[in-house]
Amino acid sequence: MTSIKEISSLYADTFSSKDFNQEPVGLYEPMNHILSIPGKRIRPLLLLLSTQAFGGEPLSALDPAHAMELFHNFTLVHDDIMDDATLRRGIITVHEKYGPNAGVLSGDALFAYSYKYLSQVPLQSMPDVFSIFTKAAIEILEGQQMDMDFEKRMDVSIPEYLHMIEYKTSVLLACSLRIGAVISGAEVADQERIYDFGVKLGLSFQIKDDWLDTFGESDKVGKKKGGDIIQNKKTFLLITLINDISDQDRVALDDMLHEKDEDKKIAGIKALYAKYDISEKTLKKAESLYTESLAALASVQIAEAQKANLYAMAELIKNRDF
Amino acid sequence: MTSIKEISSLYADTFSSKDFNQEPVGLYEPMNHILSIPGKRIRPLLLLLSTQAFGGEPLSALDPAHAMELFHNFTLVHDDIMDDATLRRGIITVHEKYGPNAGVLSGDALFAYSYKYLSQVPLQSMPDVFSIFTKAAIEILEGQQMDMDFEKRMDVSIPEYLHMIEYKTSVLLACSLRIGAVISGAEVADQERIYDFGVKLGLSFQIKDDWLDTFGESDKVGKKKGGDIIQNKKTFLLITLINDISDQDRVALDDMLHEKDEDKKIAGIKALYAKYDISEKTLKKAESLYTESLAALASVQIAEAQKANLYAMAELIKNRDF
Repeated sequence: MTSIKEISSLYADTFSSKDFNQEPVGLYEPMNHILSIPGKRIRPLLLLLSTQAFGGEPLSALDPAHAMELFHNFTLVHDDIMDDATLRRGIITVHEKYGPNAGVLSGDALFAYSYKYLSQVPLQSMPDVFSIFTKAAIEILEGQQMDMDFEKRMDVSIPEYLHMIEYKTSVLLACSLRIGAVISGAEVADQERIYDFGVKLGLSFQIKDDWLDTFGESDKVGKKKGGDIIQNKKTFLLITLINDISDQDRVALDDMLHEKDEDKKIAGIKALYAKYDISEKTLKKAESLYTESLAALASVQIAEAQKANLYAMAELIKNRDF
Repeated sequence: MTSIKEISSLYADTFSSKDFNQEPVGLYEPMNHILSIPGKRIRPLLLLLSTQAFGGEPLSALDPAHAMELFHNFTLVHDDIMDDATLRRGIITVHEKYGPNAGVLSGDALFAYSYKYLSQVPLQSMPDVFSIFTKAAIEILEGQQMDMDFEKRMDVSIPEYLHMIEYKTSVLLACSLRIGAVISGAEVADQERIYDFGVKLGLSFQIKDDWLDTFGESDKVGKKKGGDIIQNKKTFLLITLINDISDQDRVALDDMLHEKDEDKKIAGIKALYAKYDISEKTLKKAESLYTESLAALASVQIAEAQKANLYAMAELIKNRDF
């Protein structure tokens, strides 16, 4: 079995040779910019590892794997426009560097190219691969809309929040895993199990991400710490706080949500998080979803030895050691 | 043979039943808004007529036909953002009505849905259909970038301009026709001929469109007359003028291109167009490309009777009688 490290560098080699050198430069340079921002390339790696776990040859799946990364970068570019983000992993965002029009158009082109690379799958898996991917794409866009809708609402429930992050974050991980399974000819039941593994892993990852934005080390996150608090983002932390808070403290919370002084706001919300054990509750939820994800992987009907890389990958993702 | 009118209403019936009723409303309402703006639905109709011309059943191609319309509307929504257009056919644009974020995201979703509908083609035609469509999508985005690049340049040549409008406008018409041919199992040579028919027809259409923006009747065009002049858009008219103008008049032209008073600018540029017979030259070019398009259609190796609707469609498009 090829190791995670080998598969990862196999993908990196292919990936770095797939820079866009075409004209018009105004379209392709922004695409190269976003792709040049160092990333973990989790999605293509999951696709390749899944392909291998189900008995396929990872080398044959490099193009669909790259499709996942291009699609992911498309969503990053457009989300950054919508969130008005100036930095991503400490590097200037596409629309900030090249203007909003370039952001819109180069994002569109990344989306189109993801289909181009996805087309390089064997004919027999094409209908399933396209249907899984397009369904995922639609859900991811719906998830982004829910995320924006939630910013204006104070009554978002935990189930609604989980539904949103499942769409916005988990679905692409799960879809990457399932496409690998489809390419390798896995049974539908196993496709669904590996998809479920991706969903739970993604939920756990995103909830930990929420936690890191407030409690992580700033240089590790690569973006302004407490950004979610400043934006009143409906994270797992804030929603749990709103659920758990006493009527008395709710007034203080409302004040803090309207506070203009950013440092004061961050300190105020964090004090409430501390009072209601929000950090612990959040970590506990992330942990329990992680356990569920491993259970889903365990239920896949292939030899445990075949799953070793996927288990290892789950742990790497969990620990951000990747 | 089913008539254009019947096929058109067949599509319209299917189309109107395909409103997006899903949640989140913030995503789907803007999609329904752009689709509710009355349009000619030329692209799906071309796909259906081509399917029939090559011996296929138009009823079986309604989904891929709809994919062309969804993709077209995706480009309209994003182009309107980039052009900062407030009206389309006299109706408020998506980003103007729902905000730029809704414009970006609902456009993305229209793109994703176009692939969803496109997937409903028979397995054997899937690889060709996807490859033709994705190639077209990429070229259309490149064309939009060229169009924006040209706004900043004064040295755009006629061949560059033709290349740009081929990508921005013709390719989707040509791709619609070719997909119909693929679905009906046409030979590659005939697929290329019908594609060429679409390219030439589109070029002729776009050049006539340039002409209409300056010389057409405002209520027919459905947008502000002279808009291209105000924006210094590199249309066939302006590029031809720049090519043909004397050094003496070039100074007057430069002044007019920087003129802030819109009415004065329109009048000034139109006076130069009149002096250099730009209207006649433009109409002549549109006519000659139209003739070329008919020649391409004539070269398709199917019975002339099978092509009757496509000839009729070309004329309807040419005369905007549609």
